[in-house]
Amino acid sequence: MNADLINKILKKRTRQKAYSILSGEELALIEKNTDAILENIGIDLHDDPISIEILKTLGATSDGIRVKVCGKTLREHIRTHAPSSFKWRGKTPNNDIVVGGDEQIFAPVYGPPEIHHGDGNLKPEKKAHSFKNTLSTLSDYRHLVSLCDASKSLQTTGFMLCFLHDVEEKNRPIEMAKAHMELSDKPFMGTVVSEEGLKSVIEMVGRKTSQSECNLLHMINPSPPLRYQQNSLKCLRAAALSGEGVMITSYSMMGATSPVTIAGVIAQGYAEILIGLALTQLYKPGCPVVSSIFGIPFSMSSMIPTYGMPNTSLIQLISSQLVHGLGIPVRGDAGVTSSKLDDAQAGYEGGMNLSAAMSSNADFVIHTAGWLHNGICTSPGKLIRESEALEGILF
Amino acid sequence: MNADLINKILKKRTRQKAYSILSGEELALIEKNTDAILENIGIDLHDDPISIEILKTLGATSDGIRVKVCGKTLREHIRTHAPSSFKWRGKTPNNDIVVGGDEQIFAPVYGPPEIHHGDGNLKPEKKAHSFKNTLSTLSDYRHLVSLCDASKSLQTTGFMLCFLHDVEEKNRPIEMAKAHMELSDKPFMGTVVSEEGLKSVIEMVGRKTSQSECNLLHMINPSPPLRYQQNSLKCLRAAALSGEGVMITSYSMMGATSPVTIAGVIAQGYAEILIGLALTQLYKPGCPVVSSIFGIPFSMSSMIPTYGMPNTSLIQLISSQLVHGLGIPVRGDAGVTSSKLDDAQAGYEGGMNLSAAMSSNADFVIHTAGWLHNGICTSPGKLIRESEALEGILF
Repeated sequence: MNADLINKILKKRTRQKAYSILSGEELALIEKNTDAILENIGIDLHDDPISIEILKTLGATSDGIRVKVCGKTLREHIRTHAPSSFKWRGKTPNNDIVVGGDEQIFAPVYGPPEIHHGDGNLKPEKKAHSFKNTLSTLSDYRHLVSLCDASKSLQTTGFMLCFLHDVEEKNRPIEMAKAHMELSDKPFMGTVVSEEGLKSVIEMVGRKTSQSECNLLHMINPSPPLRYQQNSLKCLRAAALSGEGVMITSYSMMGATSPVTIAGVIAQGYAEILIGLALTQLYKPGCPVVSSIFGIPFSMSSMIPTYGMPNTSLIQLISSQLVHGLGIPVRGDAGVTSSKLDDAQAGYEGGMNLSAAMSSNADFVIHTAGWLHNGICTSPGKLIRESEALEGILF
Repeated sequence: MNADLINKILKKRTRQKAYSILSGEELALIEKNTDAILENIGIDLHDDPISIEILKTLGATSDGIRVKVCGKTLREHIRTHAPSSFKWRGKTPNNDIVVGGDEQIFAPVYGPPEIHHGDGNLKPEKKAHSFKNTLSTLSDYRHLVSLCDASKSLQTTGFMLCFLHDVEEKNRPIEMAKAHMELSDKPFMGTVVSEEGLKSVIEMVGRKTSQSECNLLHMINPSPPLRYQQNSLKCLRAAALSGEGVMITSYSMMGATSPVTIAGVIAQGYAEILIGLALTQLYKPGCPVVSSIFGIPFSMSSMIPTYGMPNTSLIQLISSQLVHGLGIPVRGDAGVTSSKLDDAQAGYEGGMNLSAAMSSNADFVIHTAGWLHNGICTSPGKLIRESEALEGILF
């Protein structure tokens, strides 16, 4: 046997059958409501006329920033052009990974503005409350990239592992990309801080790609309810035209930026992602995409979203059915929690959501390791614990 | 609307569709191996000739304690006689619950010899390592029954919530039953310490039951590999003949008392439970039963079973498909963990197993709350945390 085959057998990452909780009839009912939203209410595309013009080629109508369009037409366009899987390139060919292939891909936490020092394990001999969140630095960032690089279960080092409070704003995307390129050969994600930042990171990477390949995957979200902001639309276009990957996620706070019910957040979220996905395939047919609908209950008493709840797991399962129905890779979210420490609550909430992401057969699972406290901070200790626990599942 | 209907709507315990990870063909392959075990190897029934004699009416042959029998005949007998659901009676009719009905039933931990004092929440201001396991007492037991009674998510107070080290051995079943009867109106399980103990608790309860009803549910396990011991066989018979419920679970340590693979433990475990289930329906056609196969990886380095692993979740899902295929209620196991404290590991392992138990659509889920440290101790604090977390899922 050659080394590739041995490696494949040793990896043993066989996927489970997807857990499909809704019937075809139930999914059709959601689709019907999504189509009513797209056709009768519409989606606002702010300050970016090019997006509106190109959607008109699919029959969209617009009166200013609001676009109304036929949902079925969008789905047909996506199904015709978007790839069911794509290669995400690492620094060397043996670090390339396939999104939508035989393996589920796991990525670390993305986005926290702070860091939680301490080992995150709450060892009895340490007093947990002495661990304070602090503003994260470039040095923290580079340490986190190295941890992701060393992990056997994370196939990518992600991006935005924490904010760089000690780096000037305009230099942050470059410093982050440098860390990923210098400290790891694994694929990493792109920046969406601005169109210029996005283009400069694409330029830094410098590798050529062909059809159904990308070097970077860009997290581009609508701003629910039923709205895309200018920066998202510009970044989406720049990434797609450069042949780079785009991940579209409707990320709603249930009861605040979407209806409070599971059915409601999914109908709305599906309308939002259909617009973004159609745009990618209009700009560049065959553009690598990943998508999902993510819903978090919004607490009416504390006015914050609460992560790691069972509602989120159910939305994951249903969203996966809808997005796989479009013939494209699905995003999953694991490891999310409201807990401020890596305690029983963090373990339980993250574990339940990881279960849902895995059994939904999501192709690209983000926030797998290191997420703490509603995503306000990254915990290096939790990143290690979750990465190791996932190894126990995968290998 | 009447109070019952309002109550039903408020409860909102709707079941999800079951997560069936194996195809019909794959299940048939397991069944084929199970049948080969039953027909060619056989199961040992120790020191209980009556069990062997009655199995002969289904065509079994025996040379001493070993019984060989046709698997298909056992399954047909079970499918013909065992009820798909049954009523488990509480002290008053409004505490009755249906196992195999619209709701999943959740029960607390069963069996730990010790108790873990401390709140189990690892609050930062407390040093966790100062909490030692101690030998549990009747007073602990009564406290645990009250906690289960107060829980909204546990519909039963279970049994054997911890050992009674301060009560003489022969009085323990009676003292436990007294605690359940005095402190709660919810249904509870029976004792299987001995045939005499079992009969004495049935007598204490004293309620009459009719077809497809029981007052007590008895946890009767084979002793893998491929063996039932005398006490299990006697308790099984006594419970069935009294018209009380029997729960048959093959509880294997993978690599120690069963093959190390998932397919192997399931083929063996299925053979074991078919024998026990057939016996219940031979003694009393229509006897209320619950069943499942539970597998825990056995650590070859530390020589102990390791609870809360992903293998156990997969076995749960497959076991549920097989047992639901027999047309009877399925047991699930949630909340199990190897962790010695209610920390991130306990939360994560228990959460993953709870996910599997729920998505497998298990009818009766045990160890839902309070299990700690490989089942060596009960944690009242963890019992409260898990019971409250489950409320968040169910209501």
